Amino acid sequence: MSHNCAIIPIGGGTSVTNALETPVNETRLVISLDMALLDKILWIDRENLTCRAEAGIVGQSLERHLNEKGYTCGHEPDSIEFSTLGGWVSTRASGMKKNRYGNIEDLVVHLNFVCPKGIIQKQCQVPRISSGPDIHEIILGSEGTLGVISEVTIKIFPLPEIKKFGSFVFPNFESGVNFFREVAAKRIQPASLRLMDNDQFVMGQALKIASDSWWASLKNSVSKMYITSWKGFKGDQICAATCVYEGCRSEVEQQEESLNKLACKFHGVVGGEENGRYGYRLTFAIAYLRDLGMNHGVLGESFETSVPWDKVLTLCRNVKELMRREAKSQGVMHPVLASCRVTQVYDAGACVYFYFGFNAKGLINGLQVYDKIETAARDEIIACGGSISHHHGVGKIRKQWMLTTNGAVGIALLKAIKSELDPANIFANANLIDIIGSPHSKL
Amino acid sequence: MSHNCAIIPIGGGTSVTNALETPVNETRLVISLDMALLDKILWIDRENLTCRAEAGIVGQSLERHLNEKGYTCGHEPDSIEFSTLGGWVSTRASGMKKNRYGNIEDLVVHLNFVCPKGIIQKQCQVPRISSGPDIHEIILGSEGTLGVISEVTIKIFPLPEIKKFGSFVFPNFESGVNFFREVAAKRIQPASLRLMDNDQFVMGQALKIASDSWWASLKNSVSKMYITSWKGFKGDQICAATCVYEGCRSEVEQQEESLNKLACKFHGVVGGEENGRYGYRLTFAIAYLRDLGMNHGVLGESFETSVPWDKVLTLCRNVKELMRREAKSQGVMHPVLASCRVTQVYDAGACVYFYFGFNAKGLINGLQVYDKIETAARDEIIACGGSISHHHGVGKIRKQWMLTTNGAVGIALLKAIKSELDPANIFANANLIDIIGSPHSKL
Repeated sequence: MSHNCAIIPIGGGTSVTNALETPVNETRLVISLDMALLDKILWIDRENLTCRAEAGIVGQSLERHLNEKGYTCGHEPDSIEFSTLGGWVSTRASGMKKNRYGNIEDLVVHLNFVCPKGIIQKQCQVPRISSGPDIHEIILGSEGTLGVISEVTIKIFPLPEIKKFGSFVFPNFESGVNFFREVAAKRIQPASLRLMDNDQFVMGQALKIASDSWWASLKNSVSKMYITSWKGFKGDQICAATCVYEGCRSEVEQQEESLNKLACKFHGVVGGEENGRYGYRLTFAIAYLRDLGMNHGVLGESFETSVPWDKVLTLCRNVKELMRREAKSQGVMHPVLASCRVTQVYDAGACVYFYFGFNAKGLINGLQVYDKIETAARDEIIACGGSISHHHGVGKIRKQWMLTTNGAVGIALLKAIKSELDPANIFANANLIDIIGSPHSKL
Repeated sequence: MSHNCAIIPIGGGTSVTNALETPVNETRLVISLDMALLDKILWIDRENLTCRAEAGIVGQSLERHLNEKGYTCGHEPDSIEFSTLGGWVSTRASGMKKNRYGNIEDLVVHLNFVCPKGIIQKQCQVPRISSGPDIHEIILGSEGTLGVISEVTIKIFPLPEIKKFGSFVFPNFESGVNFFREVAAKRIQPASLRLMDNDQFVMGQALKIASDSWWASLKNSVSKMYITSWKGFKGDQICAATCVYEGCRSEVEQQEESLNKLACKFHGVVGGEENGRYGYRLTFAIAYLRDLGMNHGVLGESFETSVPWDKVLTLCRNVKELMRREAKSQGVMHPVLASCRVTQVYDAGACVYFYFGFNAKGLINGLQVYDKIETAARDEIIACGGSISHHHGVGKIRKQWMLTTNGAVGIALLKAIKSELDPANIFANANLIDIIGSPHSKL
């Protein structure tokens, strides 16, 4: 404080919310606090199945070390290659295998948090506690605005005996969603279960990253005829689900059997293991595809929401239609990619991921057009009962919906927390809410 | 505020932390805000499996209504007969079947919270969200200090196809704890799983509430001989576990099979269904026994903690020994009951419940002696790595450990939250922390 500096902590830098941007009206010296050297595993406790690590450790590094010792932390976000443990906590991250291992708030047992007022840490590393409002939950999702996470104790799990991929083909998106709803109600979800819409299914084929892609495997077998002729699936409606089973052999066998049986009820066809593996890996590839696309004038990005089950179909349809319509009215000349995926199932709803991209050739300011369309899409998401974010957080690009999300008293509460822990606004990235009047938000 | 009043909300009045007591230095008119008439179910959403109810609804009433429609909310605290939905949220409650349904923080989808600054509510009823620190988590555990919960949306579940009791007998407490640890590591816990120590096992027999109690069933069969002679279990070391299985038939069968198999590894003997039912119901009876005991000069109460797995045995032994030692040094002349039970299993630890009682005849101030011993026991719990509370909350009787638990910065944070939401201290029960200098705590 005496040095009149602002601090912006940086973990893996994988944020998609402009969280690491310096506010344009910041006049102080800005220190980018790189967490890269805080990358040690401090201890692994085999009896309590916990691991203490420094917050800057990168996901894949943490996971590799744990794997070598026979464990996994189970947290597998798309960004695991680069994102950090501290980043997961500060953004309220979710991983693709949350059904088995939980989201980051379920995995954290203890935290050390350094803020301008001092260090926040509980005295005990217990599995659950009832001692007033949970201070861990105030750090989770604070997005670098209150201080910096220095160390985390997380749960670890023995490596599963079996890891197996699986897939299903459904005649249309609706059948797939209804299947997912039933999987959640019956609580038979495998480690990961994700549903692509038709556009994404077709795109997955077009990419042909693997020779044994969906299309290839369907073309070269009786399957394609079976699906398109005998079962009457239509090429412009078909969609697919990929799943990952993890556990002991009997558990995985039972899960697979239950899911295969239930899929029939929703006119699903079992698509096999290889297609599941391909579909799962495609997610990691998509992040790279975005950069590749940009080199060729194609702008694309993904954004997500969570929504109650009864609103999933309407939200998906409305938001995709809106994106196509808006693109047209903004002068986009080429056909756009407006696609979605159900990536997480919960008891009371689901997480939906949208992928939106277009060829910006001929537009004066493509990025501005992209922003306009994404903003309109988010307004539609909120109007359809969806949330501001499921796991990417708010950063700066979603601040305008914070007031609607948390209400005026909620926002005042978040500001009071900020005032208490960081009165001089040293952690000044201005994510979530504005403290010194950043231009990014109406709050 | 203009009426210069203090408000203390009351739900079912089952708190065991003096949470409803008015601070002695309160000079304003105190309104006891009885929630009893806010007892309606507002809607049941069969598609999203959620239910919206007013916060004053009593557990058994909520559950009865849901049962009639084919659902359960799955939350079953010992106090379900009297405690309320709002009370569960405000104390961060946990139920006996949390393994299947989750604790209260896992069950809440949406809240309406009325505080002096206005109403806190999210705009969406989504299953999970990433929008900064979670405002629900600030309400959970606030213990009536910030405002009052008016409505709650909670998850509901289809009634399980099968509900079945089960039990195990172990040669000693250590075997039982090791069994529980393995059940947690393998993630094969049934809806409820609880382990009584030897004192409680013996007390359970002595009470003979049911004719088919443990002892009776063991006496009248070859089981007793099998256990005491052939297996070599010692009467002063034997302990027992009770469990509740819920789910579809195949699920329950698989759980039962896995548990029975695993119990063998820890020298456990399957104790049958009737003993499980009796053990489970005994919990509800214990609350009444306390009142009965008081009429005969016996003071007794229970208190709980959570603790990492590797510290469970030491904590249980140390705390029980301390209670016996302290009772002696405080002049208690009769033998005391110092018993414990492991009531909840988590990945990284367990919840331990202590029962402590003694005959106060001959003591000048029995209640003061009880308080002294419980305080010493709590100090020992904290020293052994246990938490201030697992689910009973803090109220006034555990305020002295809040600073150790949450640290100075954590406490300042809780005070800042209080200042923001209730600057005039209208919700003035003085639980958790002191705002106007209550005599109950050093904070």
